[in-house]
Amino acid sequence: MTTLTNRQVRLAKRPVGTPGRECWSFTHEPVVQPEDGGVLVKILALSLDPAMRGWMNEGKSYIPPVGIGEVMRAGGVGTVVASNNPAFAVGDTVNAGLGVQEYCLIPAAELKASGIFKIDLRVGSATQWLNVLGMPGMTGYFGLMDVGMPQPGETVVVSGAAGAVGQTVGQMAKIKGCRVVGIAGGAAKCDWVVKELGFDACIDYKAGPGAVRAGLKEHAPKGVDIYFDNVGGEILDDVLAKINRKARIIICGAISQYNNTAAVQGPKNYLSLLVNRARMEGIVVFDYADRYHLAVAEMAGYLKDGRMKSKEDVVKGLDTFPETLLKLFNGENFGKLVLQVAESE
Amino acid sequence: MTTLTNRQVRLAKRPVGTPGRECWSFTHEPVVQPEDGGVLVKILALSLDPAMRGWMNEGKSYIPPVGIGEVMRAGGVGTVVASNNPAFAVGDTVNAGLGVQEYCLIPAAELKASGIFKIDLRVGSATQWLNVLGMPGMTGYFGLMDVGMPQPGETVVVSGAAGAVGQTVGQMAKIKGCRVVGIAGGAAKCDWVVKELGFDACIDYKAGPGAVRAGLKEHAPKGVDIYFDNVGGEILDDVLAKINRKARIIICGAISQYNNTAAVQGPKNYLSLLVNRARMEGIVVFDYADRYHLAVAEMAGYLKDGRMKSKEDVVKGLDTFPETLLKLFNGENFGKLVLQVAESE
Repeated sequence: MTTLTNRQVRLAKRPVGTPGRECWSFTHEPVVQPEDGGVLVKILALSLDPAMRGWMNEGKSYIPPVGIGEVMRAGGVGTVVASNNPAFAVGDTVNAGLGVQEYCLIPAAELKASGIFKIDLRVGSATQWLNVLGMPGMTGYFGLMDVGMPQPGETVVVSGAAGAVGQTVGQMAKIKGCRVVGIAGGAAKCDWVVKELGFDACIDYKAGPGAVRAGLKEHAPKGVDIYFDNVGGEILDDVLAKINRKARIIICGAISQYNNTAAVQGPKNYLSLLVNRARMEGIVVFDYADRYHLAVAEMAGYLKDGRMKSKEDVVKGLDTFPETLLKLFNGENFGKLVLQVAESE
Repeated sequence: MTTLTNRQVRLAKRPVGTPGRECWSFTHEPVVQPEDGGVLVKILALSLDPAMRGWMNEGKSYIPPVGIGEVMRAGGVGTVVASNNPAFAVGDTVNAGLGVQEYCLIPAAELKASGIFKIDLRVGSATQWLNVLGMPGMTGYFGLMDVGMPQPGETVVVSGAAGAVGQTVGQMAKIKGCRVVGIAGGAAKCDWVVKELGFDACIDYKAGPGAVRAGLKEHAPKGVDIYFDNVGGEILDDVLAKINRKARIIICGAISQYNNTAAVQGPKNYLSLLVNRARMEGIVVFDYADRYHLAVAEMAGYLKDGRMKSKEDVVKGLDTFPETLLKLFNGENFGKLVLQVAESE
C-alpha cells in the first residue's frame, strides 16, 4: 500500500487583530492507520465559522483555545477510509471535529470528544450537513426555539442573515409564523435573503450611516420581539433601541468585535432591557447535543418539501484556508462558508 | 375652617448631568377639599429613589417623564385628612404616588393610577412601608425571586447593598439559603451590611482600583450565579467577568450612569453571557402589582421574627429635597432614603 500524505494547517502564532497568513504553518506527515477502536477519516469539506477566531485566542472560553503548533480545530464531513471500530465501516460518511487537514485519525479514546456521528447523504448533501443540518443549523434552531421562543405574529430580526446561522433562524421563524427581518451586508445578499429564503425584508447595513435604524423603523413597525444577534457592535445597539416589552435577544456571536484589538464595544443601549423587561441570553450549541437529531429530522423535512433552503459558499483547496477564513470577517461569504478539501472519497 | 397651604416642589427645567437646585421651583397654593370619590392625603414621608432621575428626562421610558412645571413625582405615605370616598376614612394611613408636596388631593379619576392602598402600621412603620414593604422591597423581592430564581447554595451578588433594594435582595437571598456578597461604598456601609444584615461579605467599591475584582475573587470563589445590578458601569463589567454557567443578571438600575452627560457605558464584558449561557434581564416592579400583597405578607413575617431588618436614612423637611435627592447619586445615603415631610397627622 502506498503511504499517503496528510497535509495540515497548524496555528503558528496567536493573532493580534485580523489573523493573517503568518498565523499559520503548513505541515505534512504520513497518514497513520487506526489502532484498536480508532477510525481514519478522509476529509471532504470543513466548516469555517466565526467561532474559530475565538479559538485562536488564549484565555478561558466555552472550550479551550487551540494550542500553538496544533492542527487548527474545525468541524467537517469526511469518509471513513480505514476502521478498527465495528461502529464505523469503510465508506461511511461522518461529521466530526476533524481539523484543518486532509486526513483525521481519531483514536478510540478521542471518538467521543470528536463528536463523531454518521450522516446520511440521502437526507442532505455533505455541505448541507455543515450548514442547516450541522452546527450552524443547530445553533440557529435551538437559539431561536429554546431561547427566543417565537410566537406567531411576532417580529424576529436576525443579523448575519445570509450566513449559516442566520439562514436557519430566519427560515425557521417564517415557518413558525413570524414576521422576519434580516440584516446583511450588500444589496445582493439582501435580495437573496428576501427572494430566495422568503424573509419579509432585509436591511443592508452597508447602505450608509443610519441604514439599520431607518430599516427597522420601516420593516419592524411594531417593534422587535426577538433579535438573534450574530454581530454585536452598533447593530446590536440599533436593535436594542427598538425592542418590545418582554423581548428576547439571543447572543450567538459578535463578529464585528472578534478582530478588535481594543476592548469589545458594550451595548450602550442595554438599559432598554430594563425599560422593556427584556432578556438578553447567550447560547452555546453543544448544550443541545442530545436533541440535535430532533432538529435535524424537522429541518430535513423542510429541506425536502422546499420550505427551507440551504446555501453554501464553497471554496476549494486546503491551501486557501488563511484567506478563505477572512471572508467571514469582511462579510464576503455568501451563505455558509465551506472549505472543500477533497472532491470525493 | 382655616385654609391650609400646600407647599410643593415642581420640576422647573430638565437637568443636564447632576440635577441642581436650579431644576426645581417651590410653589404654594391653598389645599383643596376632595369632591365626590376623591381623597385628601397629608403626606408624612416620601420615598426618594434613583428612578426619579430618569423621570426628569424627556423621552420614552417605562412611564412618561414629569412635565416641566408639574409637581415632582414621588411615592409616599400619608394620612387621609378628608375623604369623599367610602373606601377611605379620615385617619387611614395610605401608600400612593403622592408627589413632592405637603398635601395630595387625589380625585376619583386618578385613584387607580395613584396606586393608592391602605397600610397597616402594626405590620410595619411608615418608613418600612417605603422600604422593605414598599416599592424598593417589592423590586428586590420580585427581581430576585422571579428573575433570579435563587437556589440554596448559589452565590448571589448585589450592588447598592446598603440601599433600599439591596437590603431586601441580600436578606431574602440569605433566607433562601444562598451565599450573599454585597457591594457598597465605604467601610461603614460594608460593616453594617455584614454585621447587621447578615450578608456573608461586602465589597467596598471605593477601596481603590481593582477592589471589586479582588473582592469577588476572595468572597465569591465559586463564581457568581445571580447578580442583582443597581449600578451598571465598571462594577457590572467586573461581575460579568466572574459569572457562572447559566447565571442570571437582574438589571434593576444603573445609578452610576444616570447623571452621565455622555452615552451610557455599555457592558464591554457582555459576551460573558454567551460563553456562560447566561441571561441578563430587566425588571420593572409595576409588573408584579397583583402579587405585592404576597411579598408584603412574607417579608412582614421576617421583620417580625427578626430574620429581616429594614434601615431607613430619614432626612427632614420638604425644603431639603434638592440636596437630599443628590445623596442617592454620591452614595451618601445609608439605607433607604426617606424625606420626612410632616411629624405626624
